[in-house]
Amino acid sequence: MKITGTFIDEISHDIPHQNWGAEEWDRDFAHMKAIGIDTVILIRSGYRRFITYPSKYLQQEFGCYEPPVDLVKLYLEVADKHGMQFYFGLYDSGRYWDTGNMQHEIDANRYVIDEVWNQYGSYKSFKGWYLSMEISRKTKGAADAFRTLGLQCKQASNGLPTFISPWIDGKKAVMAASSTISKEDAVSLKEHEQEWSEIFSQLNGAVDAVAFQDGHIDYHELEDFFAVNKKMADTFGLQCWTNAESFDRDMPIKFLPIKFEKLRLKLEAARRAGYDKAITFEFSHFMSPQSAYLQAGHLYNRYREYIRTF
Amino acid sequence: MKITGTFIDEISHDIPHQNWGAEEWDRDFAHMKAIGIDTVILIRSGYRRFITYPSKYLQQEFGCYEPPVDLVKLYLEVADKHGMQFYFGLYDSGRYWDTGNMQHEIDANRYVIDEVWNQYGSYKSFKGWYLSMEISRKTKGAADAFRTLGLQCKQASNGLPTFISPWIDGKKAVMAASSTISKEDAVSLKEHEQEWSEIFSQLNGAVDAVAFQDGHIDYHELEDFFAVNKKMADTFGLQCWTNAESFDRDMPIKFLPIKFEKLRLKLEAARRAGYDKAITFEFSHFMSPQSAYLQAGHLYNRYREYIRTF
Amino acid sequence: MKITGTFIDEISHDIPHQNWGAEEWDRDFAHMKAIGIDTVILIRSGYRRFITYPSKYLQQEFGCYEPPVDLVKLYLEVADKHGMQFYFGLYDSGRYWDTGNMQHEIDANRYVIDEVWNQYGSYKSFKGWYLSMEISRKTKGAADAFRTLGLQCKQASNGLPTFISPWIDGKKAVMAASSTISKEDAVSLKEHEQEWSEIFSQLNGAVDAVAFQDGHIDYHELEDFFAVNKKMADTFGLQCWTNAESFDRDMPIKFLPIKFEKLRLKLEAARRAGYDKAITFEFSHFMSPQSAYLQAGHLYNRYREYIRTF
Repeated sequence: MKITGTFIDEISHDIPHQNWGAEEWDRDFAHMKAIGIDTVILIRSGYRRFITYPSKYLQQEFGCYEPPVDLVKLYLEVADKHGMQFYFGLYDSGRYWDTGNMQHEIDANRYVIDEVWNQYGSYKSFKGWYLSMEISRKTKGAADAFRTLGLQCKQASNGLPTFISPWIDGKKAVMAASSTISKEDAVSLKEHEQEWSEIFSQLNGAVDAVAFQDGHIDYHELEDFFAVNKKMADTFGLQCWTNAESFDRDMPIKFLPIKFEKLRLKLEAARRAGYDKAITFEFSHFMSPQSAYLQAGHLYNRYREYIRTF
Repeated sequence: MKITGTFIDEISHDIPHQNWGAEEWDRDFAHMKAIGIDTVILIRSGYRRFITYPSKYLQQEFGCYEPPVDLVKLYLEVADKHGMQFYFGLYDSGRYWDTGNMQHEIDANRYVIDEVWNQYGSYKSFKGWYLSMEISRKTKGAADAFRTLGLQCKQASNGLPTFISPWIDGKKAVMAASSTISKEDAVSLKEHEQEWSEIFSQLNGAVDAVAFQDGHIDYHELEDFFAVNKKMADTFGLQCWTNAESFDRDMPIKFLPIKFEKLRLKLEAARRAGYDKAITFEFSHFMSPQSAYLQAGHLYNRYREYIRTF
Repeated sequence: MKITGTFIDEISHDIPHQNWGAEEWDRDFAHMKAIGIDTVILIRSGYRRFITYPSKYLQQEFGCYEPPVDLVKLYLEVADKHGMQFYFGLYDSGRYWDTGNMQHEIDANRYVIDEVWNQYGSYKSFKGWYLSMEISRKTKGAADAFRTLGLQCKQASNGLPTFISPWIDGKKAVMAASSTISKEDAVSLKEHEQEWSEIFSQLNGAVDAVAFQDGHIDYHELEDFFAVNKKMADTFGLQCWTNAESFDRDMPIKFLPIKFEKLRLKLEAARRAGYDKAITFEFSHFMSPQSAYLQAGHLYNRYREYIRTF
């Protein structure tokens, strides 16, 4: 199972920035392409007051800061140059995290989607939308929000595809700022299936693919959860992608690149489950030869050796 | 607002050492100078049993270890070579942190100041003193200690300037070893002004500048707090510097280099408030092209591009 | 006191992997040899489901994953090439950590020892065994387990030497995943001596050397604890090694390379106590010129300068 897509983690929640300029991004897209990545996904276009493009709307309504560079423009230009697809990740106001209410995200993105499509929709590489709300099974109103936002994206853009990337509420589903790396009250396989089937049943026509994050369960649980995910995706007419996390959740430093063996276990489980596509969170910190984490360059080499054996 | 000074974080509380020798320090001062830094400030000359110069007094009285190299001599020589100013940071016995009593720091430094001036006062680059006690508004006896130590420094050295670098007790004022990155009970702007006005009113003639750390409040709070700081500094005859932290307080890894956009927001707020000088904590880990954190080299490049636009 | 041995931290508990391949390991052994390291110790041959060599037994009985590369073979070949000694670290099922019962470790390793000796015993560099159970004074059944496992290793391999590397239950003995760096209820020197004397009295003929980890006590406590360790080792006929930790336990990032001064303090304390050998945990992350942590390369340089003065 080859990784053919990666998130771009600007604006970041919990991964320190690398402070790259245009030159480094251009070089990184070339590194991606060399191992078969054809899709880049902006993880979110903004988070609270930090934004990736100079949005008049977000600066006026949410007090966002004028960004020093237009990253959306930069990414689209570099994606155009390298013949890659760009997915735009919606704005995250942070208010859902504070209040549990998804309405803020719907309201904010109603404007963002139009603004972005007007400004950037003509780029050849603009190929889809990422509904960036990271949710789990307990997120109230998630299905409604996904449905509304997905339809808005499609309406604005002549039906470009949309996807979501939720997490499995497994034993490693702890906050990044927490001092622990696991918890006791993990979801059971049966609860997972029930609750996500209910959510997926409401997404018809609004969401095209689901890419569950693969890092919150133990490696020996991958097979069972992946089989259920594939079954649900098939039932509800979604493409089934895996979001193969390339950082290591098992270490006290949160987060550094994953051990190659672990990434391989996860990709092979996705292949065996018949998944449609693998994307990763994310290449530039955790797999890139020019990452500030030098382990990433070695992971790149190990991964390259691995895909040569296919 | 250009950064013209940097702390040197030896002895470090919470930033892992880079294990540099004379060659790396020489090269780093050159990197600093290339972006306009003319002042280096030894953050402290010792902390508990670890010291930067072979102090007979501290080895005898505080059981300090013989240091493998005389860093004070090294820094003064390199500062002389590059035509930079060196500020000496006082000794921190650690006892204040344990007991809440500042008297230990006053007693220890009474001897340290004389010892240091005798040994190193003739270096051309020895240009000032940093009263290294990091305090906040609730530190009992802080004003007294600053006053006493500031006067001692000046008496010993024919009136060389002194400065302090306290923190604002904002929402990000949590211990480095804490697993959290923010707290609930942040100081209000009004309390901040009342309490620091009271402290500053006692520093006349003993302290020349105050460089509040800029990282404990949120970015949208900078404007208000900086305005108050400048007003207080003016009222009490202090120079108003900003200590622009170049590490990121918003991430679970404590600490890696800051995102350039955040540093820029802080420097521009200081400029708008009419601050006199910007220093940073600190160049060698977080902004240097030769830092072990490669994000720092990229921050250096982004910062260099930024100051070219002035 | 020169460091002449190092652990190899595969499989790792809490240090992120570097994702090295055969080329990097070959180069690393050369870097080790250049500063006088003649012994490499595989810290453990497996931990829970992750293993370093394709053990039929562990895959069948413990559900272990097929490893992507046979690291034991790789290390033995590289050790042969560079004329170094290899110690094999036993398997850690993780069950002791969960249940407090050492019997699982004894049962699992009964088979592992034979399997490994059959597969790899003919390598010239296979020179000893490391009983990998990291224990402290309160570990029930530790002496029994060490005795049983040590005797099994010796029986299988014509008496090759064995060693253990326990920790001192000092103030820095906190879990890596904990958000703190020290605790209150540290062991006293007297308790340490009583409890370890009792353990050591049961190891006769089964264990040849003890290498206490040196990082859990404060630097000014080294002298007293090291003197007691040497006295106990002499009394019970054990060689007394030090496990000089080359990572820094005093920092919020867990873990980066240690400040050279601290390593020097620990090595000099071991020398003064008359220790027989110094090993380190561990070279490849924390002292290697090719470590992903660039501070490690500088530590390598400082250490090399230091040993040239002998």
